[in-house]
Amino acid sequence: VHLSVQGSQDLAGQIYRQLRAAMVEGRLAAGERLPSTRALAVQLGVSRKTTLEAFDRLTAEGYLGARQGDGSFVNEGLHRLTEAVPPSMVTRLTATPVWERVPEALSMPVPTPTLPIDFRGGSTDRGAFPFDAWRRCMLHALRATARGFSGYRDPAGEQELRLAISRYLAVSRAVTRQWREVIVTQGAQQALDLIARVMIRPGDVVAMEDPGYPPARACFAAAGARVVDVPVDGEGLVVERLPAQARLVYVTPSHQFPLGMPMSLSRRVALLQWAQRHAALIVEDDYDGEYRFEGRPLDALKSLDQADTVAYVGTFSKTIFPELRLGYMVPPGALHQALCKARQTVDWHSCMMTQTALAKFMLDGDFARHQRRMHKLYGKRRELLLARLRGPLSPWLEPLESVAGIHLAAYIKQPIGETELIDAAARAGIGLYGLAPFHNRAGARPGLLFGYGATDLEHVERGLTGLERLLPTLGRNRLG
Amino acid sequence: VHLSVQGSQDLAGQIYRQLRAAMVEGRLAAGERLPSTRALAVQLGVSRKTTLEAFDRLTAEGYLGARQGDGSFVNEGLHRLTEAVPPSMVTRLTATPVWERVPEALSMPVPTPTLPIDFRGGSTDRGAFPFDAWRRCMLHALRATARGFSGYRDPAGEQELRLAISRYLAVSRAVTRQWREVIVTQGAQQALDLIARVMIRPGDVVAMEDPGYPPARACFAAAGARVVDVPVDGEGLVVERLPAQARLVYVTPSHQFPLGMPMSLSRRVALLQWAQRHAALIVEDDYDGEYRFEGRPLDALKSLDQADTVAYVGTFSKTIFPELRLGYMVPPGALHQALCKARQTVDWHSCMMTQTALAKFMLDGDFARHQRRMHKLYGKRRELLLARLRGPLSPWLEPLESVAGIHLAAYIKQPIGETELIDAAARAGIGLYGLAPFHNRAGARPGLLFGYGATDLEHVERGLTGLERLLPTLGRNRLG
Repeated sequence: VHLSVQGSQDLAGQIYRQLRAAMVEGRLAAGERLPSTRALAVQLGVSRKTTLEAFDRLTAEGYLGARQGDGSFVNEGLHRLTEAVPPSMVTRLTATPVWERVPEALSMPVPTPTLPIDFRGGSTDRGAFPFDAWRRCMLHALRATARGFSGYRDPAGEQELRLAISRYLAVSRAVTRQWREVIVTQGAQQALDLIARVMIRPGDVVAMEDPGYPPARACFAAAGARVVDVPVDGEGLVVERLPAQARLVYVTPSHQFPLGMPMSLSRRVALLQWAQRHAALIVEDDYDGEYRFEGRPLDALKSLDQADTVAYVGTFSKTIFPELRLGYMVPPGALHQALCKARQTVDWHSCMMTQTALAKFMLDGDFARHQRRMHKLYGKRRELLLARLRGPLSPWLEPLESVAGIHLAAYIKQPIGETELIDAAARAGIGLYGLAPFHNRAGARPGLLFGYGATDLEHVERGLTGLERLLPTLGRNRLG
Repeated sequence: VHLSVQGSQDLAGQIYRQLRAAMVEGRLAAGERLPSTRALAVQLGVSRKTTLEAFDRLTAEGYLGARQGDGSFVNEGLHRLTEAVPPSMVTRLTATPVWERVPEALSMPVPTPTLPIDFRGGSTDRGAFPFDAWRRCMLHALRATARGFSGYRDPAGEQELRLAISRYLAVSRAVTRQWREVIVTQGAQQALDLIARVMIRPGDVVAMEDPGYPPARACFAAAGARVVDVPVDGEGLVVERLPAQARLVYVTPSHQFPLGMPMSLSRRVALLQWAQRHAALIVEDDYDGEYRFEGRPLDALKSLDQADTVAYVGTFSKTIFPELRLGYMVPPGALHQALCKARQTVDWHSCMMTQTALAKFMLDGDFARHQRRMHKLYGKRRELLLARLRGPLSPWLEPLESVAGIHLAAYIKQPIGETELIDAAARAGIGLYGLAPFHNRAGARPGLLFGYGATDLEHVERGLTGLERLLPTLGRNRLG
């Protein structure tokens, strides 16, 4: 074993670490005798105090056994760390098979930051966020943290945040006025996961919209569910196609993801009645219902729920930004306790400072002001998008009905493939995203998802103008 | 149906909400005819424009069906929201049975903030935390957030934080130098949960120390594991008592929780060899190994792991504070990808701003400075505790060997019950905590857990003086 020391810092530590590594890795065999501390000191050009210190530590920790007069020996037993285990005794550590069914990266629009214009969905306008007000709220939260006691908190969330959310939901979505019903989560994704954890046993059937939201699908699949696709039409989920065994139905009634249509009142009534008859849980993902345009669309499905079968799920990812990782749910009373237990078991609770900051941001009125401002901003982008899609782009694209949200879907009318169009647009510096990743079954109608949360008016304009130039060339090439 | 309006704000909205609620709740039956907008306006003393607006919205949303000339009728179908479902068709929504096995509140020391002196474990000294430095790091993170793109991030954590953690682990615990091996988690609890999610199928055997850490037990139980208790002795977990079928072994080798002894080197070697032979995963929870006293105890078990069978888990709960909810793990390479998938599926990632702030706090050296300072502070409290336990309190209490951490365990020597002593101390204004909640089997030796993370020197002193006065009276009463 080769030993060497460098410089003059922590010489004993250097010797300790090299000897220890040699023993752990089996280069110094069990029972082997080490040189004396005196000889080693001479060999390395260090003081004997240094080698003694290293040997003392190795002896104290059990690496070296010292026999009186005989010097130091590598302890018996260490060879077991590296001894070959018969192949029959070794099976590789592997994750359970359910994880093979979960995609490595969830198929969400991936940013293409090199493109000058980008219609990625799921992003918000960072530049328009009132960071000054947020800083004030964070500093407030920091002072509150410094004053408070240190320890774990309520898994359901900080009380003032639950209060702020319940007030907001009562006014904005007619959902609840009771802060105790609200559970704060690490984004909507955790709400879905907790619901899956308490409801799903391997093999249980979960019904999802197709096309639908892939991260929800991954979540239910990871819980071992058999996920059954249910088609959507112009009124949303086709209730009569629900599988009778479904224990859980995941829907996006305010703004079907990704197509955009709201679920009609009669479908809502039919779905609630179906769930009641089948003792199934409805999970209402109201992921961007905050942004409603064209009149006043329906309140949340949860507001019609007379039998307490709906778990309402919301998020701040679309109103603030996704990296904040805060969302919430209002579950049926029968599941509240199990969900709080599950939250405590999986991670106790969300960061207290962020929760406190957000509570202040909401209770001070900054959140409402920000939403009003963003509503105007996003509304203008949406108007422009719709005007161009229905005008100059109408020979090629057909926007779907949508009254809410921060994205629009449009079918491709000409025989141009999604991938073909997306690739051509990328070459022209425009980031487009297809609908195919959201369909679970092949043969769906080609289309695009235009996100405008992080694309300002000027870029929407320039992107669509670029498309107006690009599409005829594709169509001509294709149609010959 | 009784309608009324109050004040002069949003009169149409008031009428809309009252009529809608009456229809949803079934007080206005399907097919029922509503008064004309004109008659209702007169009745309520509002303008016809107001009643028309309310009726228009109800019609647009599908609550009212208008037949020409006949006025407005409650839409057919709404009665289904409240119609009685035959009892045979209704089963109550219930969580899966596994959650009945998880306690409602995890048995952790619960704060008794009304007591002037408190030896609660698991808390840190909030007053000694450098909030000024932390504020600087948070403001830096806020600026970074304002500049960055908006969207989901790497489930394994922010790169700079993983880098900072890997450097820290390499120097402090000899664990890893590779930032890619580190996965940031929402506290150590989430690391345990993710590991359980990817490793455990219902019925799998998990071995745990008894006494042990109840939240880990809850986590494995929630994953459907059969948790088997393995005794500990003065050298830590008794490896030869491990059940052969165990797929996962949870241990606290640096500082056995709650008793405090470190696991001996020979036991470590035996455990690693056992895991290798049985293809089991070892989960090393190094929950407070940062604070080591009396010489330099062993590096992490992971540092001996030549066969890559150890998942190393750590937390910032004991070095910063638990409400931050940040921890990390260094899993075996074979599980890395599945764990990242699982993290993405359960909640995507931790709050980006908090991660960025912590990375700066570590890379700027503030974390190391804070740790050095706390080491001195906690060391003094520990010295005082040990001196008094071994001195004036020795007739009643017997401290267990411990070289690390921010709590000490002590057995009760006299025939005084844990509860009796805790209750008597509470009446004297001293918060004590017993060992019983950490034992899964009855008949364990009575003892106390003295946390000194959030108890300053003066309060440690006063608390122990109080105990010195209290214990003889208990002993006399009992023995007298």
